[in-house]
Amino acid sequence: MNLSAYTVPDIPLIQKGDDLAEIICERTVLHDHDIIAIASTIVAKAEGRIIELQDISPSEHAISIAECNCSDPRFVQMVLDESEEILLESPFLLVKTRNGNICVNAGIDGSNIDRGHVVLLPENSDQSAKNIRDEIFSITDKKVSVIVTDTNGRAFRDGQTGVAIGISGIRPTRDWRGSCDLFGNVLEVANEAIVDELAGAANLLFGEACDGTPVVIISGLDFYAEEDGIGRMYFPESEDVIRSALMQTRHGDAAIRTQEDRSKGRLHLT
Amino acid sequence: MNLSAYTVPDIPLIQKGDDLAEIICERTVLHDHDIIAIASTIVAKAEGRIIELQDISPSEHAISIAECNCSDPRFVQMVLDESEEILLESPFLLVKTRNGNICVNAGIDGSNIDRGHVVLLPENSDQSAKNIRDEIFSITDKKVSVIVTDTNGRAFRDGQTGVAIGISGIRPTRDWRGSCDLFGNVLEVANEAIVDELAGAANLLFGEACDGTPVVIISGLDFYAEEDGIGRMYFPESEDVIRSALMQTRHGDAAIRTQEDRSKGRLHLT
Repeated sequence: MNLSAYTVPDIPLIQKGDDLAEIICERTVLHDHDIIAIASTIVAKAEGRIIELQDISPSEHAISIAECNCSDPRFVQMVLDESEEILLESPFLLVKTRNGNICVNAGIDGSNIDRGHVVLLPENSDQSAKNIRDEIFSITDKKVSVIVTDTNGRAFRDGQTGVAIGISGIRPTRDWRGSCDLFGNVLEVANEAIVDELAGAANLLFGEACDGTPVVIISGLDFYAEEDGIGRMYFPESEDVIRSALMQTRHGDAAIRTQEDRSKGRLHLT
Repeated sequence: MNLSAYTVPDIPLIQKGDDLAEIICERTVLHDHDIIAIASTIVAKAEGRIIELQDISPSEHAISIAECNCSDPRFVQMVLDESEEILLESPFLLVKTRNGNICVNAGIDGSNIDRGHVVLLPENSDQSAKNIRDEIFSITDKKVSVIVTDTNGRAFRDGQTGVAIGISGIRPTRDWRGSCDLFGNVLEVANEAIVDELAGAANLLFGEACDGTPVVIISGLDFYAEEDGIGRMYFPESEDVIRSALMQTRHGDAAIRTQEDRSKGRLHLT
Protein backbone atom coordinates (compact mmCIF):
# COMPACT_ATOMS: atom_id res chain seq x y z
CA MET A 1 0.00 0.00 0.00
CA ASN A 2 1.22 3.40 -0.96
CA LEU A 3 0.31 6.93 0.06
CA SER A 4 1.57 10.07 -1.59
CA ALA A 5 1.04 13.67 -0.66
CA TYR A 6 2.18 16.91 -2.24
CA THR A 7 1.71 20.62 -1.73
CA VAL A 8 -0.14 22.56 -4.42
CA PRO A 9 2.40 25.07 -5.78
CA ASP A 10 2.10 28.85 -5.99
CA ILE A 11 -0.99 29.44 -3.88
CA PRO A 12 -1.17 33.26 -3.70
CA LEU A 13 -1.82 35.23 -0.49
CA ILE A 14 -5.55 34.71 -0.09
CA GLN A 15 -7.87 37.74 0.05
CA LYS A 16 -11.54 38.01 0.98
CA GLY A 17 -13.70 36.75 -1.86
CA ASP A 18 -11.00 34.59 -3.48
CA ASP A 19 -12.30 31.38 -5.00
CA LEU A 20 -10.24 28.59 -3.38
CA ALA A 21 -11.67 25.79 -5.52
CA GLU A 22 -10.72 27.66 -8.69
CA ILE A 23 -7.26 28.55 -7.34
CA ILE A 24 -6.59 24.88 -6.51
CA CYS A 25 -7.95 23.53 -9.80
CA GLU A 26 -5.82 25.97 -11.82
CA ARG A 27 -2.65 24.71 -10.13
CA THR A 28 -3.03 20.94 -10.05
CA VAL A 29 -4.69 18.01 -11.77
CA LEU A 30 -7.18 16.31 -9.49
CA HIS A 31 -8.39 12.72 -9.66
CA ASP A 32 -11.51 11.03 -8.31
CA HIS A 33 -11.23 10.37 -4.58
CA ASP A 34 -8.15 12.53 -4.03
CA ILE A 35 -8.16 13.96 -0.53
CA ILE A 36 -7.60 17.72 -0.35
CA ALA A 37 -6.44 19.13 2.98
CA ILE A 38 -6.74 22.92 3.26
CA ALA A 39 -5.41 25.00 6.16
CA SER A 40 -8.33 26.76 7.86
CA THR A 41 -6.43 30.07 7.78
CA ILE A 42 -6.85 30.49 4.03
CA VAL A 43 -10.46 29.30 4.12
CA ALA A 44 -11.14 31.93 6.79
CA LYS A 45 -9.31 34.63 4.86
CA ALA A 46 -11.31 33.88 1.70
CA GLU A 47 -14.43 34.22 3.82
CA GLY A 48 -13.28 37.58 5.22
CA ARG A 49 -12.95 36.27 8.80
CA ILE A 50 -10.30 38.82 9.76
CA ILE A 51 -10.66 41.16 12.71
CA GLU A 52 -8.69 44.28 13.51
CA LEU A 53 -7.79 44.26 17.21
CA GLN A 54 -8.32 48.01 17.63
CA ASP A 55 -12.02 47.56 16.78
CA ILE A 56 -12.61 45.37 19.86
CA SER A 57 -13.82 46.69 23.23
CA PRO A 58 -13.06 44.08 25.88
CA SER A 59 -15.54 43.31 28.66
CA GLU A 60 -14.62 43.21 32.36
CA HIS A 61 -14.56 39.43 32.11
CA ALA A 62 -12.14 39.52 29.19
CA ILE A 63 -9.91 42.02 31.01
CA SER A 64 -9.79 39.81 34.09
CA ILE A 65 -8.90 36.67 32.10
CA ALA A 66 -6.28 38.59 30.12
CA GLU A 67 -4.64 39.77 33.35
CA CYS A 68 -4.40 36.21 34.62
CA ASN A 69 -2.99 34.87 31.36
CA CYS A 70 -0.77 37.84 30.44
CA SER A 71 -2.60 38.23 27.13
CA ASP A 72 -4.32 41.01 25.18
CA PRO A 73 -7.84 41.66 26.56
CA ARG A 74 -9.13 42.42 23.05
CA PHE A 75 -7.85 39.04 21.90
CA VAL A 76 -9.52 37.38 24.89
CA GLN A 77 -12.78 39.15 24.03
CA MET A 78 -12.70 37.70 20.54
CA VAL A 79 -12.08 34.23 21.91
CA LEU A 80 -15.11 34.62 24.20
CA ASP A 81 -17.20 35.89 21.27
CA GLU A 82 -16.29 32.83 19.20
CA SER A 83 -16.91 30.33 22.01
CA GLU A 84 -19.97 28.39 23.03
CA GLU A 85 -18.47 27.36 26.37
CA ILE A 86 -15.34 27.95 28.43
CA LEU A 87 -13.70 24.81 29.85
CA LEU A 88 -10.67 26.51 31.37
CA GLU A 89 -9.88 30.22 31.78
CA SER A 90 -6.31 29.95 32.99
CA PRO A 91 -3.40 29.30 32.39
CA PHE A 92 -4.88 29.30 28.90
CA LEU A 93 -8.35 29.71 27.43
CA LEU A 94 -9.64 26.26 26.58
CA VAL A 95 -13.04 26.60 24.92
CA LYS A 96 -15.64 24.80 22.89
CA THR A 97 -16.15 26.67 19.62
CA ARG A 98 -19.63 27.12 18.15
CA ASN A 99 -18.85 24.26 15.76
CA GLY A 100 -18.04 21.92 18.65
CA ASN A 101 -14.24 21.72 18.59
CA ILE A 102 -12.56 21.96 21.99
CA CYS A 103 -9.34 23.93 21.55
CA VAL A 104 -7.25 26.76 22.93
CA ASN A 105 -8.25 30.33 22.01
CA ALA A 106 -11.12 29.18 19.76
CA GLY A 107 -8.51 28.57 17.06
CA ILE A 108 -7.98 32.32 16.62
CA ASP A 109 -4.61 32.96 15.07
CA GLY A 110 -2.34 35.99 14.93
CA SER A 111 0.19 34.52 12.51
CA ASN A 112 0.30 34.92 8.74
CA ILE A 113 -1.78 38.10 8.94
CA ASP A 114 -0.98 41.83 9.11
CA ARG A 115 0.14 42.97 12.57
CA GLY A 116 -2.77 44.07 14.73
CA HIS A 117 -5.16 41.69 12.99
CA VAL A 118 -6.21 38.13 13.73
CA VAL A 119 -7.86 35.39 11.71
CA LEU A 120 -10.92 33.67 13.17
CA LEU A 121 -11.80 30.12 12.16
CA PRO A 122 -14.23 29.78 9.27
CA GLU A 123 -17.84 30.46 10.33
CA ASN A 124 -18.77 26.83 9.58
CA SER A 125 -15.85 24.68 8.42
CA ASP A 126 -18.08 21.78 7.36
CA GLN A 127 -20.02 24.09 5.07
CA SER A 128 -16.76 25.57 3.76
CA ALA A 129 -15.46 22.06 2.97
CA LYS A 130 -18.72 21.19 1.23
CA ASN A 131 -18.74 24.39 -0.83
CA ILE A 132 -15.16 23.78 -2.00
CA ARG A 133 -15.89 20.13 -2.81
CA ASP A 134 -19.04 21.03 -4.77
CA GLU A 135 -17.25 23.69 -6.74
CA ILE A 136 -14.30 21.41 -7.51
CA PHE A 137 -16.82 18.91 -8.87
CA SER A 138 -18.47 21.56 -11.00
CA ILE A 139 -15.07 22.63 -12.44
CA THR A 140 -13.40 19.22 -12.87
CA ASP A 141 -16.16 16.61 -12.68
CA LYS A 142 -13.99 14.87 -10.05
CA LYS A 143 -15.36 13.60 -6.76
CA VAL A 144 -12.86 14.51 -4.07
CA SER A 145 -12.78 14.51 -0.27
CA VAL A 146 -12.10 17.87 1.40
CA ILE A 147 -10.68 18.38 4.91
CA VAL A 148 -10.36 21.84 6.49
CA THR A 149 -7.58 21.58 9.07
CA ASP A 150 -6.41 23.44 12.14
CA THR A 151 -3.45 22.86 14.47
CA ASN A 152 -4.39 21.84 18.02
CA GLY A 153 -2.55 20.77 21.13
CA ARG A 154 -3.43 17.57 22.94
CA ALA A 155 -3.98 16.50 26.51
CA PHE A 156 -0.95 14.80 28.14
CA ARG A 157 1.43 15.31 25.20
CA ASP A 158 3.55 18.29 24.26
CA GLY A 159 3.34 19.83 20.79
CA GLN A 160 0.52 20.40 18.35
CA THR A 161 -0.75 18.30 15.46
CA GLY A 162 -3.01 18.94 12.50
CA VAL A 163 -6.66 18.06 13.13
CA ALA A 164 -9.76 18.14 10.96
CA ILE A 165 -12.33 20.81 11.84
CA GLY A 166 -14.54 20.57 8.76
CA ILE A 167 -15.00 17.74 6.26
CA SER A 168 -16.91 16.84 3.13
CA GLY A 169 -16.85 13.70 0.98
CA ILE A 170 -15.34 11.55 3.72
CA ARG A 171 -16.34 9.83 6.97
CA PRO A 172 -14.42 11.08 10.01
CA THR A 173 -13.48 7.62 11.29
CA ARG A 174 -12.70 4.17 9.93
CA ASP A 175 -14.49 1.73 12.15
CA TRP A 176 -12.63 -1.55 12.56
CA ARG A 177 -15.03 -2.84 15.20
CA GLY A 178 -16.49 -6.18 14.21
CA SER A 179 -13.72 -7.03 11.75
CA CYS A 180 -11.35 -9.89 12.49
CA ASP A 181 -7.64 -9.70 13.17
CA LEU A 182 -4.96 -12.09 11.90
CA PHE A 183 -5.95 -14.61 14.60
CA GLY A 184 -9.69 -14.41 14.01
CA ASN A 185 -10.33 -12.30 17.12
CA VAL A 186 -13.14 -9.79 16.63
CA LEU A 187 -11.93 -6.23 17.22
CA GLU A 188 -13.98 -4.40 19.83
CA VAL A 189 -12.62 -0.90 20.25
CA ALA A 190 -10.70 0.20 17.17
CA ASN A 191 -12.33 3.23 15.58
CA GLU A 192 -9.63 5.13 13.74
CA ALA A 193 -9.87 8.90 13.43
CA ILE A 194 -8.67 8.95 9.83
CA VAL A 195 -9.48 12.60 9.12
CA ASP A 196 -7.21 13.68 11.96
CA GLU A 197 -4.42 11.38 10.78
CA LEU A 198 -4.80 12.85 7.29
CA ALA A 199 -4.80 16.39 8.69
CA GLY A 200 -1.63 15.54 10.63
CA ALA A 201 0.05 14.15 7.50
CA ALA A 202 -0.89 17.31 5.60
CA ASN A 203 0.45 19.45 8.45
CA LEU A 204 3.87 17.86 7.96
CA LEU A 205 3.90 19.47 4.50
CA PHE A 206 2.08 22.75 5.24
CA GLY A 207 4.72 24.15 7.53
CA GLU A 208 3.67 26.86 9.95
CA ALA A 209 5.85 29.79 9.06
CA CYS A 210 6.52 31.38 5.68
CA ASP A 211 6.20 28.33 3.50
CA GLY A 212 3.04 29.49 1.79
CA THR A 213 1.85 25.96 1.07
CA PRO A 214 -1.58 25.71 2.69
CA VAL A 215 -3.08 23.08 0.35
CA VAL A 216 -2.02 19.42 0.27
CA ILE A 217 -3.33 16.68 -2.00
CA ILE A 218 -3.19 13.13 -0.62
CA SER A 219 -3.67 10.18 -2.93
CA GLY A 220 -3.40 6.41 -2.72
CA LEU A 221 -5.99 6.04 0.06
CA ASP A 222 -9.60 5.82 -0.96
CA PHE A 223 -11.75 7.13 1.86
CA TYR A 224 -14.33 8.81 -0.37
CA ALA A 225 -17.89 8.74 0.97
CA GLU A 226 -20.95 10.80 0.10
CA GLU A 227 -21.00 12.23 3.58
CA ASP A 228 -20.26 15.53 5.30
CA GLY A 229 -19.68 16.73 8.81
CA ILE A 230 -17.08 16.55 11.56
CA GLY A 231 -19.76 16.70 14.26
CA ARG A 232 -19.80 13.08 15.29
CA MET A 233 -16.07 13.26 16.02
CA TYR A 234 -16.96 15.34 19.09
CA PHE A 235 -18.32 13.50 22.14
CA PRO A 236 -21.73 14.30 23.56
CA GLU A 237 -21.05 16.02 26.89
CA SER A 238 -22.41 13.09 28.88
CA GLU A 239 -19.82 10.77 27.33
CA ASP A 240 -16.76 13.00 27.62
CA VAL A 241 -14.97 11.96 30.80
CA ILE A 242 -12.04 14.39 30.50
CA ARG A 243 -14.33 17.37 29.85
CA SER A 244 -16.43 16.33 32.82
CA ALA A 245 -13.34 16.25 35.09
CA LEU A 246 -12.28 19.68 33.87
CA MET A 247 -15.73 21.16 34.47
CA GLN A 248 -15.95 19.62 37.94
CA THR A 249 -12.57 21.07 38.85
CA ARG A 250 -13.55 24.45 37.44
CA HIS A 251 -16.77 24.61 39.41
CA GLY A 252 -15.29 23.15 42.58
CA ASP A 253 -17.65 20.21 42.35
CA ALA A 254 -15.73 16.98 42.79
CA ALA A 255 -18.68 14.90 43.85
CA ILE A 256 -18.20 11.23 43.09
CA ARG A 257 -20.21 10.34 40.06
CA THR A 258 -22.80 7.62 40.28
CA GLN A 259 -22.36 4.22 38.75
CA GLU A 260 -24.99 5.25 36.20
CA ASP A 261 -22.90 8.27 35.19
CA ARG A 262 -19.81 6.16 34.88
CA SER A 263 -21.47 3.61 32.69
CA LYS A 264 -22.23 6.35 30.16
CA GLY A 265 -18.52 6.99 29.64
CA ARG A 266 -17.17 5.77 26.37
CA LEU A 267 -13.84 4.02 25.96
CA HIS A 268 -12.60 6.89 23.88
CA LEU A 269 -8.96 7.01 24.89
CA THR A 270 -8.03 3.42 24.07
CA MET B 1 7.05 19.33 -1.35
CA ASN B 2 6.31 15.68 -1.59
CA LEU B 3 5.85 12.89 0.92
CA SER B 4 5.53 9.22 0.11
CA ALA B 5 4.85 6.30 2.36
CA TYR B 6 4.57 2.60 1.68
CA THR B 7 4.09 -0.60 3.63
CA VAL B 8 6.95 -3.10 3.69
CA PRO B 9 5.58 -6.24 2.01
CA ASP B 10 5.40 -9.77 3.39
CA ILE B 11 6.29 -9.16 7.03
CA PRO B 12 5.78 -12.62 8.61
CA LEU B 13 3.95 -13.22 11.89
CA ILE B 14 6.56 -12.11 14.39
CA GLN B 15 7.79 -14.54 17.05
CA LYS B 16 9.90 -14.00 20.15
CA GLY B 17 13.53 -13.54 19.16
CA ASP B 18 12.85 -12.45 15.56
CA ASP B 19 15.25 -9.84 14.26
CA LEU B 20 13.04 -6.98 13.05
CA ALA B 21 15.88 -4.93 11.53
CA GLU B 22 16.96 -7.90 9.44
CA ILE B 23 13.37 -8.71 8.42
CA ILE B 24 12.83 -5.11 7.27
CA CYS B 25 16.16 -4.84 5.44
CA GLU B 26 15.53 -8.11 3.57
CA ARG B 27 12.25 -6.77 2.21
CA THR B 28 12.97 -3.20 1.17
CA VAL B 29 15.73 -0.86 0.04
CA LEU B 30 16.36 1.85 2.60
CA HIS B 31 17.88 5.28 2.03
CA ASP B 32 19.57 7.73 4.37
CA HIS B 33 17.05 9.63 6.47
CA ASP B 34 14.08 7.42 5.61
CA ILE B 35 11.62 7.32 8.50
CA ILE B 36 10.58 3.82 9.57
CA ALA B 37 7.37 3.52 11.56
CA ILE B 38 6.90 0.15 13.28
CA ALA B 39 3.75 -0.95 15.12
CA SER B 40 4.60 -1.57 18.77
CA THR B 41 2.77 -4.92 18.64
CA ILE B 42 5.46 -6.58 16.53
CA VAL B 43 8.27 -4.97 18.51
CA ALA B 44 6.70 -6.37 21.69
CA LYS B 45 6.20 -9.80 20.12
CA ALA B 46 9.83 -9.94 19.03
CA GLU B 47 10.76 -9.10 22.61
CA GLY B 48 8.55 -11.86 23.98
CA ARG B 49 6.18 -9.47 25.74
CA ILE B 50 3.21 -11.82 25.56
CA ILE B 51 1.23 -12.90 28.61
CA GLU B 52 -1.18 -15.79 28.99
CA LEU B 53 -4.25 -14.60 30.88
CA GLN B 54 -4.63 -17.85 32.83
CA ASP B 55 -1.25 -17.23 34.49
CA ILE B 56 -2.49 -14.06 36.19
CA SER B 57 -3.94 -13.92 39.74
CA PRO B 58 -5.88 -10.69 40.10
CA SER B 59 -5.70 -8.67 43.35
CA GLU B 60 -8.78 -7.40 45.23
CA HIS B 61 -8.15 -3.98 43.68
CA ALA B 62 -8.08 -5.41 40.17
CA ILE B 63 -11.27 -7.39 40.84
CA SER B 64 -13.07 -4.28 42.08
CA ILE B 65 -12.01 -2.18 39.05
CA ALA B 66 -12.96 -5.02 36.70
CA GLU B 67 -16.44 -5.20 38.23
CA CYS B 68 -16.94 -1.45 37.68
CA ASN B 69 -15.73 -1.57 34.09
CA CYS B 70 -17.19 -4.94 33.11
CA SER B 71 -13.74 -6.22 32.17
CA ASP B 72 -11.57 -9.26 32.93
CA PRO B 73 -9.89 -8.89 36.38
CA ARG B 74 -6.77 -10.66 35.08
CA PHE B 75 -6.52 -8.10 32.29
CA VAL B 76 -6.97 -5.28 34.82
CA GLN B 77 -4.21 -6.79 36.96
CA MET B 78 -1.83 -6.70 34.03
CA VAL B 79 -2.70 -3.07 33.36
CA LEU B 80 -1.96 -2.23 37.00
CA ASP B 81 1.32 -4.15 36.81
CA GLU B 82 2.40 -2.17 33.75
CA SER B 83 1.40 1.23 35.16
CA GLU B 84 3.29 3.79 37.17
CA GLU B 85 0.15 5.73 38.11
CA ILE B 86 -3.61 5.49 37.66
CA LEU B 87 -5.32 8.67 36.46
CA LEU B 88 -8.80 7.20 36.12
CA GLU B 89 -10.18 3.82 37.19
CA SER B 90 -13.59 4.00 35.59
CA PRO B 91 -15.31 4.01 33.09
CA PHE B 92 -11.93 3.00 31.69
CA LEU B 93 -8.45 2.55 33.09
CA LEU B 94 -6.45 5.63 32.12
CA VAL B 95 -2.87 5.19 33.33
CA LYS B 96 0.63 6.47 32.99
CA THR B 97 2.88 3.68 31.78
CA ARG B 98 6.36 3.22 33.18
CA ASN B 99 7.72 4.91 30.05
CA GLY B 100 5.57 8.00 30.66
CA ASN B 101 2.79 7.66 28.09
CA ILE B 102 -0.71 8.39 29.41
CA CYS B 103 -3.10 5.99 27.72
CA VAL B 104 -5.95 3.57 28.29
CA ASN B 105 -5.10 0.07 29.56
CA ALA B 106 -1.33 0.72 29.49
CA GLY B 107 -1.48 -0.01 25.77
CA ILE B 108 -2.10 -3.70 26.43
CA ASP B 109 -3.70 -5.30 23.43
CA GLY B 110 -5.73 -8.45 22.92
CA SER B 111 -5.86 -8.30 19.14
CA ASN B 112 -3.55 -10.01 16.66
CA ILE B 113 -2.57 -12.58 19.25
CA ASP B 114 -3.76 -16.08 20.16
CA ARG B 115 -6.99 -16.08 22.17
CA GLY B 116 -6.38 -15.97 25.91
CA HIS B 117 -3.13 -14.05 25.42
CA VAL B 118 -2.34 -10.35 25.36
CA VAL B 119 0.58 -8.31 24.10
CA LEU B 120 2.17 -5.79 26.46
CA LEU B 121 3.96 -2.72 25.11
CA PRO B 122 7.72 -3.09 24.61
CA GLU B 123 9.62 -2.85 27.89
CA ASN B 124 11.30 0.37 26.72
CA SER B 125 10.17 1.56 23.30
CA ASP B 126 12.92 4.19 23.01
CA GLN B 127 15.53 1.49 23.52
CA SER B 128 13.73 -0.79 21.04
CA ALA B 129 13.75 2.03 18.44
CA LYS B 130 17.44 2.65 19.05
CA ASN B 131 18.34 -1.03 18.80
CA ILE B 132 16.50 -1.36 15.48
CA ARG B 133 18.08 1.83 14.12
CA ASP B 134 21.56 0.76 15.13
CA GLU B 135 21.13 -2.66 13.58
CA ILE B 136 19.73 -1.22 10.35
CA PHE B 137 22.84 0.96 10.19
CA SER B 138 25.10 -2.03 10.72
CA ILE B 139 23.33 -3.99 7.94
CA THR B 140 22.83 -1.20 5.37
CA ASP B 141 25.14 1.67 6.37
CA LYS B 142 22.05 3.91 6.13
CA LYS B 143 21.11 6.43 8.82
CA VAL B 144 17.36 6.19 9.33
CA SER B 145 14.85 7.51 11.86
CA VAL B 146 12.79 4.90 13.73
CA ILE B 147 9.40 5.46 15.36
CA VAL B 148 7.67 2.77 17.42
CA THR B 149 3.95 3.53 17.29
CA ASP B 150 0.84 2.74 19.27
CA THR B 151 -2.81 3.70 18.72
CA ASN B 152 -4.25 6.02 21.38
CA GLY B 153 -7.51 7.85 21.90
CA ARG B 154 -7.57 11.59 22.58
CA ALA B 155 -9.35 13.88 25.00
CA PHE B 156 -12.43 15.61 23.54
CA ARG B 157 -12.37 13.79 20.19
CA ASP B 158 -13.78 10.41 19.21
CA GLY B 159 -11.59 7.79 17.56
CA GLN B 160 -7.97 6.79 17.94
CA THR B 161 -4.87 7.89 16.05
CA GLY B 162 -1.35 6.57 15.73
CA VAL B 163 1.12 8.10 18.20
CA ALA B 164 4.83 7.69 18.78
CA ILE B 165 5.84 5.88 21.97
CA GLY B 166 9.52 5.33 21.23
CA ILE B 167 11.86 7.13 18.85
CA SER B 168 15.45 7.12 17.64
CA GLY B 169 17.20 9.27 15.06
CA ILE B 170 14.60 12.03 15.16
CA ARG B 171 13.50 14.88 17.42
CA PRO B 172 9.91 14.53 18.68
CA THR B 173 8.83 18.05 17.71
CA ARG B 174 9.59 20.66 15.06
CA ASP B 175 9.81 23.96 16.87
CA TRP B 176 8.59 26.89 14.80
CA ARG B 177 8.88 29.34 17.70
CA GLY B 178 11.05 32.28 16.79
CA SER B 179 10.69 31.81 13.03
CA CYS B 180 8.80 34.41 11.00
CA ASP B 181 5.55 33.97 9.11
CA LEU B 182 4.69 35.37 5.69
CA PHE B 183 4.00 38.77 7.26
CA GLY B 184 7.19 38.90 9.35
CA ASN B 185 5.36 38.12 12.62
CA VAL B 186 7.46 36.00 14.99
CA LEU B 187 5.69 32.74 15.85
CA GLU B 188 5.28 32.23 19.58
CA VAL B 189 3.51 28.96 20.21
CA ALA B 190 3.94 26.60 17.27
CA ASN B 191 5.79 23.45 18.32
CA GLU B 192 4.71 20.70 16.00
CA ALA B 193 4.56 17.12 17.27
CA ILE B 194 6.00 15.65 14.08
CA VAL B 195 6.58 12.15 15.40
CA ASP B 196 2.88 11.83 16.24
CA GLU B 197 1.87 13.17 12.83
CA LEU B 198 4.23 10.63 11.23
CA ALA B 199 2.82 7.84 13.43
CA GLY B 200 -0.70 8.88 12.38
CA ALA B 201 0.25 8.86 8.69
CA ALA B 202 1.76 5.38 9.12
CA ASN B 203 -1.38 4.21 10.94
CA LEU B 204 -3.42 5.05 7.83
CA LEU B 205 -1.42 2.34 6.05
CA PHE B 206 -1.00 -0.20 8.87
CA GLY B 207 -4.64 -1.07 9.18
CA GLU B 208 -5.83 -2.57 12.46
CA ALA B 209 -7.28 -5.90 11.47
CA CYS B 210 -5.79 -8.64 9.30
CA ASP B 211 -3.72 -6.50 6.96
CA GLY B 212 -0.40 -7.78 8.26
CA THR B 213 1.44 -4.59 7.32
CA PRO B 214 3.00 -3.32 10.55
CA VAL B 215 6.01 -1.52 9.01
CA VAL B 216 5.75 1.70 6.97
CA ILE B 217 8.59 3.63 5.31
CA ILE B 218 8.07 7.38 4.93
CA SER B 219 10.34 9.36 2.64
CA GLY B 220 10.50 12.89 1.27
CA LEU B 221 10.68 14.55 4.70
CA ASP B 222 14.08 14.88 6.26
CA PHE B 223 13.70 14.96 10.04
CA TYR B 224 16.85 12.96 10.78
CA ALA B 225 18.67 13.97 13.96
CA GLU B 226 21.26 12.18 16.08
CA GLU B 227 18.84 12.09 18.98
CA ASP B 228 16.74 9.55 20.83
CA GLY B 229 13.86 9.59 23.25
CA ILE B 230 10.15 10.37 23.34
CA GLY B 231 10.40 11.54 26.99
CA ARG B 232 10.25 15.27 26.44
CA MET B 233 6.97 14.84 24.57
CA TYR B 234 5.34 14.12 27.94
CA PHE B 235 4.64 17.07 30.24
CA PRO B 236 6.19 17.29 33.68
CA GLU B 237 3.29 16.77 36.11
CA SER B 238 3.42 20.39 37.31
CA GLU B 239 2.76 21.64 33.79
CA ASP B 240 0.00 19.25 32.79
CA VAL B 241 -3.27 21.07 33.40
CA ILE B 242 -5.58 18.33 32.16
CA ARG B 243 -3.86 15.64 34.24
CA SER B 244 -4.07 17.94 37.25
CA ALA B 245 -7.85 18.40 36.77
CA LEU B 246 -8.29 14.64 36.45
CA MET B 247 -6.31 13.95 39.62
CA GLN B 248 -8.20 16.62 41.56
CA THR B 249 -11.51 15.13 40.51
CA ARG B 250 -10.31 11.65 41.38
CA HIS B 251 -9.22 12.64 44.84
CA GLY B 252 -12.20 14.92 45.49
CA ASP B 253 -9.89 17.88 45.84
CA ALA B 254 -11.15 20.73 43.73
CA ALA B 255 -9.39 23.48 45.65
CA ILE B 256 -8.75 26.53 43.54
CA ARG B 257 -5.16 26.59 42.42
CA THR B 258 -2.97 29.52 43.31
CA GLN B 259 -1.78 32.07 40.83
CA GLU B 260 1.66 30.51 41.18
CA ASP B 261 0.30 27.11 40.18
CA ARG B 262 -1.53 28.59 37.25
CA SER B 263 1.53 30.37 35.94
CA LYS B 264 3.29 27.02 35.69
CA GLY B 265 0.77 25.77 33.14
CA ARG B 266 2.09 25.55 29.64
CA LEU B 267 0.09 26.57 26.57
CA HIS B 268 0.11 23.02 25.40
CA LEU B 269 -3.29 22.77 23.77
CA THR B 270 -2.97 25.68 21.30
